[in-house]
Amino acid sequence: MSLKYAVIGTGAIGGYYGGKLAQSGKEVHFLFHSDYEYVKKKGLQVDSITGNFHLYPISAYNKATDMPVCDVVLVGLKTTNNSLLKELLHPIIHQNSLVILIQNGLGLEENLQKDFPELKIAGGLAFICSNKVGEGHINHLDYGKINLGAYSCSEEQLLAVCADFIQAGIEAEVIELNLARWKKLVWNIPYNGMSVVLNTTTDKLMNNPSSRQLLYDLMIEVIRAGNAVGNSIPDSFADEMLEMTETMKPYAPSMKLDYDAKRPLEIDAIYSSPIRKALKAGYVMQKVSMLERQLQFIQEQY
Amino acid sequence: MSLKYAVIGTGAIGGYYGGKLAQSGKEVHFLFHSDYEYVKKKGLQVDSITGNFHLYPISAYNKATDMPVCDVVLVGLKTTNNSLLKELLHPIIHQNSLVILIQNGLGLEENLQKDFPELKIAGGLAFICSNKVGEGHINHLDYGKINLGAYSCSEEQLLAVCADFIQAGIEAEVIELNLARWKKLVWNIPYNGMSVVLNTTTDKLMNNPSSRQLLYDLMIEVIRAGNAVGNSIPDSFADEMLEMTETMKPYAPSMKLDYDAKRPLEIDAIYSSPIRKALKAGYVMQKVSMLERQLQFIQEQY
Repeated sequence: MSLKYAVIGTGAIGGYYGGKLAQSGKEVHFLFHSDYEYVKKKGLQVDSITGNFHLYPISAYNKATDMPVCDVVLVGLKTTNNSLLKELLHPIIHQNSLVILIQNGLGLEENLQKDFPELKIAGGLAFICSNKVGEGHINHLDYGKINLGAYSCSEEQLLAVCADFIQAGIEAEVIELNLARWKKLVWNIPYNGMSVVLNTTTDKLMNNPSSRQLLYDLMIEVIRAGNAVGNSIPDSFADEMLEMTETMKPYAPSMKLDYDAKRPLEIDAIYSSPIRKALKAGYVMQKVSMLERQLQFIQEQY
Repeated sequence: MSLKYAVIGTGAIGGYYGGKLAQSGKEVHFLFHSDYEYVKKKGLQVDSITGNFHLYPISAYNKATDMPVCDVVLVGLKTTNNSLLKELLHPIIHQNSLVILIQNGLGLEENLQKDFPELKIAGGLAFICSNKVGEGHINHLDYGKINLGAYSCSEEQLLAVCADFIQAGIEAEVIELNLARWKKLVWNIPYNGMSVVLNTTTDKLMNNPSSRQLLYDLMIEVIRAGNAVGNSIPDSFADEMLEMTETMKPYAPSMKLDYDAKRPLEIDAIYSSPIRKALKAGYVMQKVSMLERQLQFIQEQY
C-alpha cells in the first residue's frame, strides 16, 4: 500500500524532496505560505543538477486544515517556526502517522514529542545545496543525500519511507539519529555562525589561516561535546569536514542567507540546545557559547 | 633642572599630554607625520573639558633626526608602528633618557628593550577619551588620568616626570606596571574586539544581555590570565569595569576607530601578546583567542 505524503514548509528542502517524491508518482500534498497563489496557478519548478522538472497541477494548500490526513509528514520549516507545528500537524495526522523533521540542530524531536506524546517522530538530515530562487522556484545546486533516523518510530516504518526516497532517485539511508545530528553540527556550528558574525562565505573562511584555525577549534569543541553526551566521534572527523568544504563551491550557509534577509536565526536549535546538552553532561562549550552570544547580539540589532 | 620632553606620535594621546606639558611651560618637541605642514603654520589646537588651549608657535618636526636630544620621550604611536622606534629614538636619546610608552597592550617595553638594552623604559596607561578630529586638532572629551609604571628605570626618575604631569594639571600616579597593564586589558580586550567584530559601540554592547554576558566572560578570562602570570586581580574588578562603562557616554574604542578607517588593528599588543604570556604560565585564553582570530580575519579582509 502506497504511503501518502504531506510537506509542511515547502521551501528549498521540503520542495526538493517532496517534489522528487511527487515526480516519482507518490501522492504528495504541499503546504505553502507566501507562494500558494503562484504555485496553484503556475506549479512548482525544480531546477536540479539531476534534471529539471515541473510539477503542474500540484496538490497545494495554504491551510493545514484543508489538507487530507497523511501517512508521512515531511517538515521543512525553519526551526524558528517549530512552535507552529502544534497547530499545523493536528489536521493531517492519524494514529500511526510518521513526522520527519528535516531540520538542523538538536532537541527538535524531543520538543515536538512533548506536544504529541503518542506521535511517531523521526529526524531527517539533508546534505544538499538547494535554494529558493523565486516564487514556486527551487534551485538544487549540489549534493542531495538525506539521512533518516528514528526518534520514536520503528525502524521498519522509517525503512518504508527510505525506500520511497530511493525509488524517487534520492540517495537515502537510515542512520542513528543522535550521532548523525551531532556529526552534522560539527559542520553547521562553525560555518553558519562564523559566516554571519564575520559577514562572509565559506571559501573566505577557509582561505584565511586565522579563521580556518578557528573553524577547526570550533569543530573539535563540538566533537568533544558530542562525545560527552555519549557518541564517539574521532577528531579526524574535523579534518574530513575541512577537506569536504574545500571541495565545495563558495557557499553561503543557510544562517547567512537568513541573516542577509533579516530573518530569525536558528540559534536555539543549532547553538543553545547543544550547549545545554553538553553542559548537562559536564562539558562547557566555551567558543561555541561565544558564537551563540555574538549571534544573539546580531539578531537583536535587526 | 627642568626636563626636556619629546613626543613621538602626536595624535589624540601624545598631543594631549605633550600639549598640556608645553602649555604649563615645559620644553616639548613634537614629531608630526601628516599634520606637520599644517601645525608649523597654524599650531596645535586642543579642545578639552578642562579648558581649550592653542599652542603657537610650536616646536614641531617631521624628522626625528632634526630633533634635539631629550630627557623624556613620550611615545604615542599606535603599537602597530613600534617597529619604527628603532630608527626614531636614536637621534633624540642620551644615556639617561627615559622613554615612556603610552600605549595599550603587553610586551611593548620588553620588545623595545631588545633593540635598546641600556635604555631606561617605562609604560604609561592613559585613561582618557580623546580623539584627533582634524589637522592639528585634538578633542579631549572625558577623563584624562595617566598612570606611569617603571620597566627599566628608577622610580625616582619616573616620579620626576609624574611631578611635571601633575604640575601641568594632569592627574598622574606611579603604579606597578605589569599589574596595571593587565588591569587595563580587562577593559581593552572585550570592548575593543567586540566593537569591531560586531561593528558597534560600547552602549549597544552593554544594553544587550547576550553581549553584556560575553563582555563579562571575556573580562573574567583576562583576570584569570593576569593572575596566572602572577597578579592578584579579584573577579569583582570585572563588575567594576562594567559599572564604570555604564556611566560612560556611547563610545567607539580606539580599535573600532582604526577599523572604521581601515587602519591596522593593534591585535598583537592587545590580544596575541597576553595570550602568549598566559599560555606560557599554563592558562589557555579560549574566548580571547577566538576574538583574536576573528580580528585577524577581519583585518585581512580590508
